[in-house]
Amino acid sequence: MAIAEPWCARLPAGTLAAKLDVGVLGATGMVGQQLVSLLDGHPWFRLAWLGASERSAGRRYGELPWRLPGASPEGPARRKVETLTPGRAPHLLFSALDAGVAGEAEAAFARAGHIVVSNARNHRMDPLVPLLVPEINPNHLSLLPLQRRKHGWSGALITNPNCSTVFLALALAALREFAPERLVVTTLQALSGAGYPGVTSMDAVGNVIPFIDGEEEKIESETRKVLGRFTGDGVALHPAAISAQTNRVPVVHGHLVTVAVSLRENAARDDLLAAFGNFSGRPQGLGLPSAPVHPVIYLDQPNRPQPRLDAERDRGMAVCVGRLRACPVMSWKFVLLGHNLIRGAAGAAILNAELLAAEGLVR
Amino acid sequence: MAIAEPWCARLPAGTLAAKLDVGVLGATGMVGQQLVSLLDGHPWFRLAWLGASERSAGRRYGELPWRLPGASPEGPARRKVETLTPGRAPHLLFSALDAGVAGEAEAAFARAGHIVVSNARNHRMDPLVPLLVPEINPNHLSLLPLQRRKHGWSGALITNPNCSTVFLALALAALREFAPERLVVTTLQALSGAGYPGVTSMDAVGNVIPFIDGEEEKIESETRKVLGRFTGDGVALHPAAISAQTNRVPVVHGHLVTVAVSLRENAARDDLLAAFGNFSGRPQGLGLPSAPVHPVIYLDQPNRPQPRLDAERDRGMAVCVGRLRACPVMSWKFVLLGHNLIRGAAGAAILNAELLAAEGLVR
Amino acid sequence: MAIAEPWCARLPAGTLAAKLDVGVLGATGMVGQQLVSLLDGHPWFRLAWLGASERSAGRRYGELPWRLPGASPEGPARRKVETLTPGRAPHLLFSALDAGVAGEAEAAFARAGHIVVSNARNHRMDPLVPLLVPEINPNHLSLLPLQRRKHGWSGALITNPNCSTVFLALALAALREFAPERLVVTTLQALSGAGYPGVTSMDAVGNVIPFIDGEEEKIESETRKVLGRFTGDGVALHPAAISAQTNRVPVVHGHLVTVAVSLRENAARDDLLAAFGNFSGRPQGLGLPSAPVHPVIYLDQPNRPQPRLDAERDRGMAVCVGRLRACPVMSWKFVLLGHNLIRGAAGAAILNAELLAAEGLVR
Amino acid sequence: MAIAEPWCARLPAGTLAAKLDVGVLGATGMVGQQLVSLLDGHPWFRLAWLGASERSAGRRYGELPWRLPGASPEGPARRKVETLTPGRAPHLLFSALDAGVAGEAEAAFARAGHIVVSNARNHRMDPLVPLLVPEINPNHLSLLPLQRRKHGWSGALITNPNCSTVFLALALAALREFAPERLVVTTLQALSGAGYPGVTSMDAVGNVIPFIDGEEEKIESETRKVLGRFTGDGVALHPAAISAQTNRVPVVHGHLVTVAVSLRENAARDDLLAAFGNFSGRPQGLGLPSAPVHPVIYLDQPNRPQPRLDAERDRGMAVCVGRLRACPVMSWKFVLLGHNLIRGAAGAAILNAELLAAEGLVR
Repeated sequence: MAIAEPWCARLPAGTLAAKLDVGVLGATGMVGQQLVSLLDGHPWFRLAWLGASERSAGRRYGELPWRLPGASPEGPARRKVETLTPGRAPHLLFSALDAGVAGEAEAAFARAGHIVVSNARNHRMDPLVPLLVPEINPNHLSLLPLQRRKHGWSGALITNPNCSTVFLALALAALREFAPERLVVTTLQALSGAGYPGVTSMDAVGNVIPFIDGEEEKIESETRKVLGRFTGDGVALHPAAISAQTNRVPVVHGHLVTVAVSLRENAARDDLLAAFGNFSGRPQGLGLPSAPVHPVIYLDQPNRPQPRLDAERDRGMAVCVGRLRACPVMSWKFVLLGHNLIRGAAGAAILNAELLAAEGLVR
Repeated sequence: MAIAEPWCARLPAGTLAAKLDVGVLGATGMVGQQLVSLLDGHPWFRLAWLGASERSAGRRYGELPWRLPGASPEGPARRKVETLTPGRAPHLLFSALDAGVAGEAEAAFARAGHIVVSNARNHRMDPLVPLLVPEINPNHLSLLPLQRRKHGWSGALITNPNCSTVFLALALAALREFAPERLVVTTLQALSGAGYPGVTSMDAVGNVIPFIDGEEEKIESETRKVLGRFTGDGVALHPAAISAQTNRVPVVHGHLVTVAVSLRENAARDDLLAAFGNFSGRPQGLGLPSAPVHPVIYLDQPNRPQPRLDAERDRGMAVCVGRLRACPVMSWKFVLLGHNLIRGAAGAAILNAELLAAEGLVR
Repeated sequence: MAIAEPWCARLPAGTLAAKLDVGVLGATGMVGQQLVSLLDGHPWFRLAWLGASERSAGRRYGELPWRLPGASPEGPARRKVETLTPGRAPHLLFSALDAGVAGEAEAAFARAGHIVVSNARNHRMDPLVPLLVPEINPNHLSLLPLQRRKHGWSGALITNPNCSTVFLALALAALREFAPERLVVTTLQALSGAGYPGVTSMDAVGNVIPFIDGEEEKIESETRKVLGRFTGDGVALHPAAISAQTNRVPVVHGHLVTVAVSLRENAARDDLLAAFGNFSGRPQGLGLPSAPVHPVIYLDQPNRPQPRLDAERDRGMAVCVGRLRACPVMSWKFVLLGHNLIRGAAGAAILNAELLAAEGLVR
Repeated sequence: MAIAEPWCARLPAGTLAAKLDVGVLGATGMVGQQLVSLLDGHPWFRLAWLGASERSAGRRYGELPWRLPGASPEGPARRKVETLTPGRAPHLLFSALDAGVAGEAEAAFARAGHIVVSNARNHRMDPLVPLLVPEINPNHLSLLPLQRRKHGWSGALITNPNCSTVFLALALAALREFAPERLVVTTLQALSGAGYPGVTSMDAVGNVIPFIDGEEEKIESETRKVLGRFTGDGVALHPAAISAQTNRVPVVHGHLVTVAVSLRENAARDDLLAAFGNFSGRPQGLGLPSAPVHPVIYLDQPNRPQPRLDAERDRGMAVCVGRLRACPVMSWKFVLLGHNLIRGAAGAAILNAELLAAEGLVR
């Protein structure tokens, strides 16, 4: 990649002289807490700054409600939560801000020189913002110089897709040589994907809610950008047609997706199994700390993957595929699973930042 | 229908001089208990006989475990459970037998002169056995004379489809004028559909199992028979191509189905809404006791239907549709819900029997 | 009872010339909706008025979210929601107001001449307000003349206890002759008891929350008032010492209570079983429409009562007891279950109002 | 301890020259799998043998269904499952056998010279068998010479208590100086405690089952043995009277217990908090690998402990206490939580074996 710029000192890929200080915007929500948890003890990053809305700013992080199992990590717990003001925060920032504030806040930080690695939806479809899944489209980082020039930012903004999109895009990227053309997918999404407080228990327990606001549109559009081609001055969306139906089910973590896909190229079942099993990308090549050994794991048992048993494979960073079989309507159908808070959100952002660090795009 | 035969005295449709005695084969399972519950106080039928496997035969029905809420109905509770031997049982029998024994037992009862209205899967795809959904294919009862002749039975055997198939077939029948051609469906099925003991709680709680043995094949084949055309000497399967993916979710009752369908005929959304809302059939025309006022209810709220809130609409005999919207891949997509134990099993069989009674096919 | 007063025309018990118009304060919450549902088709009462906070007032009731299964009843759905202002509302009002507003609003309606039958906690422990469970303490209605005089109200205020208290008090009342002295109880309470939105699903699914704010105090104090003795000018609390631990479990409806109780009087197990089975009170004597045939149902099976199977016994108005056995620490232990929204809230209020009507205390 | 015997070479406590080979009896059940999982990578023990019933014997362990998340550990997966025959198995064996076979099989292995560290219930109340919780009663190991002599075994048998008993006994041991006299406890137990397949989902989802066969008796008796005094030739049961009510709730892992306890000695709340916080025992002193830093963790938040958030504290080896408050009937009440598969079963057995190893009682 020829995307090194004066504003970043390229470091030798995969090695860092010392840990990089990082911060988290929106550290108090479910994804923010997952970021804090994953960054605790991270080999490359040192969590040095926590930002949140006015309501939480000024308090010790450890005084705020912690929604993940156990207690909040001790280091962050002692830290004071800062307001969302650029300046004193570290160069590299993760954002788990709510969509209501992420749009302006993230732009303000990027303008002020920060590298913002965001999980928020606001800027994902901005033509100048990489919608990054490092195994799939690391070259989309070449958007950054354009982004800086056109937006007039001295920093940069990189996003990861919606949780279900990450999982779907990884599975499709593995099948790229067979040219997926049309997809009909149905998701069965976990409760933690709605954040906290999220879905009320009266709606969730023993029930299914066949609607998640805006989710189907995200899957149908973001997947095409992730798989899109960098054209030199932008990303051409992948031509696949995608239809999604999204449902909330009473599962704590792990989104399951049924996929029916038509492929332009003929393929034997073994070809597809090999494609899933052999799929790999730059994170694996670079040995990024959060990279799963195999981004896609195919499970042979007839009743897998299952959220409770498989969402945490390879620390929640792998997606699992199962039940590949011929489809009477499309070409093939299969089942897909990923951990929505990890590979679908906080872990996705951290892997993105690791790629930036390995490529020398952060200092 | 010209299907009256010497073996049945046609009664005036919709009126019965006295209640008909009926029996239940397989009265101890989940569907059998639901049959017993629905037959308690039925206006046309009097539950006069309970049959079950050797393990239960000889005991009072009320001594056996009752899995439905409350206590078992008092009348049946006092009755002794009989063995599965034709002869002393009433002419009209419901069957909720396990597939392991239903095949031979049901044939034996039909051979011995009984009218067997079955929920078991064994004979559903027999070309001579009606796979009956009274709103859709009452004329498939014309198979009965052929069935009697070819099988040499003095009785008859009528089946209802698999639970998810009933719901899907009703929705498609409502859209028949628009010529459904291809369907991609995903089911989210309730635990009670697996019977008792069924799914273990360690697999079910907070989890999804993306596999139900044999279920996808049933949906893909049975739906085409239900919607098929009676040709004079058989049923020509409907030409639609159907792809199903089936999942077990931690819901007690109510199967939800996401449907993406391509229609040969163009249709505006209002046309389809009208088709759902106006759909009606012979049970409604005859005023059968278990007939829902509207077999298909369209729900306008964006997050409906939901199993916990909508499965029991019209005593569990209506199916609910919601979220009708254009599909980027097929023509339309929507969500469908039905009560698996009622409209999908016990209630389906009872409605079938009510049609037989109204048509004078039982005595 | 010598509690007839000029302000109420005593009607012949158990008969009403015409249906009484009634209203519901707080008709939009979970208990309010349950009241509306139970009053739809009630033989004595006609729902003629719906009141709610400013946020909902002025809208058609049917436009507001309905949280119970199915659709809201048609009659109420067409009605406009009124503000919480005394005057045009019917004489007899049910209150399901939030505790935040119930205190003042209910007093204002009682002052203005309405009979307020409340489920709210605010006035329950007011020495002049009956905490009524009609099978137990109908004579506490004798507080009303005192209440009117001291508070200067032309109407009246009657309350029902907290849900778990109703169930516990009914079980203890059945055992009254054996003189319960000390109780250690633990509740496993359903989600619907927290209202809507209530408990978030991330806290509820696959989890237990061992804390319900204020609940233990209510059980420990309200039970003693319900079982207390009317002294002529007040209610002397029952002397029993009660210790409660309350938990929220992922159950939709039905609170289960484990009870360990020491009795002053020796009793054989059969004596206690007889006491439960024979327990009856004024609602049964008067044949009140919502009265359960047996207020307490003892279930013999070793693993009952269970919320999903037993909470709706006798339309949710009976409580179930099971597993009575000797206790190594107290005298006896047993398990208790009731439907929190019905016998524990809306149904309790309606039964209270039916007693008032039968006693001629409303017009 | 003067319990060293010729049959065991005492090793320096806390150090092992090389890993000890160990085996698992009953390796295919839920607790057996948890043992295999915890032993994978254990610093002192090397899993060298897997035994199971005839049904599984002879197959590769990895071919058998694995019920825990992810895949079975690679080493054990390659191993062949052996029959339950003494002889070729390692000296030290863990037993997770079903009660149906554990009684005879464990005795046979102990007779043949093996040290059997069992989780099964069969021999727990045998007066010569230590019911060991290493923080509480390590001196009960002094029963072993008696056991060998009277039973004529060249090996030995050590048991850990029932899951809920471990948690209760740890909490009571922490309060020992205040002399607990009477306890009323109610458990809310997780599904995994019933093994696999265990509880059917129709009984579990959205429900509570107020009955667990034999569980109350175990809690009431085993707790008194664990806390009992070694008398030189046996264990005198602790005199406390204990009353337990046990319930199954839809939680995957983690048993919650409400405890009301009367103490003979007066105590201020701070005294009790200090007693919980300071509680420690021999595993902590010896630095056993599986020993929790603090066996009892007191959680200050008013709504804790919760199974989903707290069961895995300190790798599932600590128990959590919360909500300590004065009790109107007994002296104090509080809430207690432990991980049933770890501290309550497999982890308990491993900690027991670590104590044996540190004390030089295994070779």
